[in-house]
Amino acid sequence: MELLDQTRLPTEEVYLRLDSAAEVAEAIRVMRIRGAPALGIAAAMGVALELARAARGPAADLAATFGEARALLLSTRPTGHNLAWALERMGRRFRACGGERPAAVVAALTAEATLIAEEDRLACRRIGEFGLELLPGEGATVYTHCNAGALATGGIGTAVAPIYLARERGIPVRVIVGETRPLLQGARLTAWELGRAGLDVTLVVDSAAGALMKEGRVNLVITGADRIAANGDAANKIGTYGLAVLARHHGIPFYVAAPLSTIDPATPSGADIPIEERYGAEVRCGFGRVTAPADVAVANPAFDVTPAELVTAIVTDRGILRPPYGAAIAEALEP
Amino acid sequence: MELLDQTRLPTEEVYLRLDSAAEVAEAIRVMRIRGAPALGIAAAMGVALELARAARGPAADLAATFGEARALLLSTRPTGHNLAWALERMGRRFRACGGERPAAVVAALTAEATLIAEEDRLACRRIGEFGLELLPGEGATVYTHCNAGALATGGIGTAVAPIYLARERGIPVRVIVGETRPLLQGARLTAWELGRAGLDVTLVVDSAAGALMKEGRVNLVITGADRIAANGDAANKIGTYGLAVLARHHGIPFYVAAPLSTIDPATPSGADIPIEERYGAEVRCGFGRVTAPADVAVANPAFDVTPAELVTAIVTDRGILRPPYGAAIAEALEP
Repeated sequence: MELLDQTRLPTEEVYLRLDSAAEVAEAIRVMRIRGAPALGIAAAMGVALELARAARGPAADLAATFGEARALLLSTRPTGHNLAWALERMGRRFRACGGERPAAVVAALTAEATLIAEEDRLACRRIGEFGLELLPGEGATVYTHCNAGALATGGIGTAVAPIYLARERGIPVRVIVGETRPLLQGARLTAWELGRAGLDVTLVVDSAAGALMKEGRVNLVITGADRIAANGDAANKIGTYGLAVLARHHGIPFYVAAPLSTIDPATPSGADIPIEERYGAEVRCGFGRVTAPADVAVANPAFDVTPAELVTAIVTDRGILRPPYGAAIAEALEP
Repeated sequence: MELLDQTRLPTEEVYLRLDSAAEVAEAIRVMRIRGAPALGIAAAMGVALELARAARGPAADLAATFGEARALLLSTRPTGHNLAWALERMGRRFRACGGERPAAVVAALTAEATLIAEEDRLACRRIGEFGLELLPGEGATVYTHCNAGALATGGIGTAVAPIYLARERGIPVRVIVGETRPLLQGARLTAWELGRAGLDVTLVVDSAAGALMKEGRVNLVITGADRIAANGDAANKIGTYGLAVLARHHGIPFYVAAPLSTIDPATPSGADIPIEERYGAEVRCGFGRVTAPADVAVANPAFDVTPAELVTAIVTDRGILRPPYGAAIAEALEP
């Protein structure tokens, strides 16, 4: 598979070729690819690539290969759900192959991975259509955080999808994006992709959000999600929870946008979502320069959880879910 | 005057020698020195240096020199009050000199600048004493933002003064500091000075504050201020307002610590405080690397205003002020 190395943006557009589950796992760990839906697609592709590798060799034990690739990919990042969801789906397809020839198994699992990507592309578009209804007419200013755009998905993004659709339909919309420390996905990725699409984007430091809301410069906040629990609690990039509290304080709607594959019915509430703690070096020396004492302790949770009661609505590819989320989610997930 | 160049911390300790008002003004503009009380001291020193320079030359017009130095220094940064306060005080001393000989005027104004610095040193200590009463016993965790420490003042800081005193008295206290984008005063300065003093400091990205409060890991928030209006509204580094909202949401006390020289009775409310907008480049390319598209629009307000109703108490060198702040401030400012 070909992959745009997101750690090099916005200054360089470098494409990498990945040929094994190990290479995909490494790309996920160091965040050359990130964003919950994109991680689901990448993990599925990683499994398919690894099975194809094994099938090319002698005496392939595809079941063992599948199990190892699955475990490796599953171990990369714990918080997002789409990755586990996609691997689970690949597992079902693998088991359904029964005793078929290796070439047929590889073809089936490659097709499944491709289908996951294609379905995500469509889900993004549907999220965009539903989300568009939430924009309060012309000239709305949307605040978003991190990157829940094209770079995070197989399509036009989740949180950003309504913005792309507004642009497509000639509805003026402004975007304010927080830079999203420590890894600056807002500055490096969202500002980059929205700017390329010709959108009106303003970049701010994350801590400016409150002042902008107080001045009436934000009409709504919309973010993606890495995992949504059965009760509607949503894990997303660190800082999302603070935005939700600020939005509530200022009477501004706070929306979460995600495909159903981000919802984990087996996670009862946000308290059950494991939060990835990343390296202190991401905070201590972020920009090619040491920006803190080398020996200072760092807390670097990559995500936080926004409780359902702060979420105005969840925009999914099956429609807009409103509180109470427990029932709305259960209904949306019915086959 | 000698000055530690704060833009080079924490990696280099470089001292600069400044000999004129123009050099001091430039150091203030590019933030080699910053922090409201420190800017008051620097501006007073800048005036004294400039008068000394003029007095060394032939036919010195000290009144013109004073007026020009004052205007130049006043133009550097608009939000903080101590700078204007110190220049006003230097003006009163200058006028009191009447027709004295240049050498006597220079001596008087140098003495006044030294007095401003010395008084600030004492004010910090008093703020520390009063603030210490607000720490909830042993093992409290204090969240602070930006740098309101020794580097921002003539003494042991404002927000950080109670922490230094706790350490002095063997009271265990933990500090969490937000890195404070864009210029990272929390990471580069507060983490550095508290670490050198042997304090227990943990560094986080600014947007992690909400998650830490939700997890019960913060007992109180204390920040400095750049200007406090007559009604208690307080301008401080961008992000402070968001912290105050988060503290309120979590039922955590939010304190502002500042000497009386930060209070401007001529500013009725926060709406009357001019907010400095700084260069977009501070956000677009932090610290030696381009981190956003070169052409992206940036909003970069250096400060925000926390309304008095979110402030639990204001810790000054004259005691702890409680709401209603209008009356408390008027009383504290009585001569």
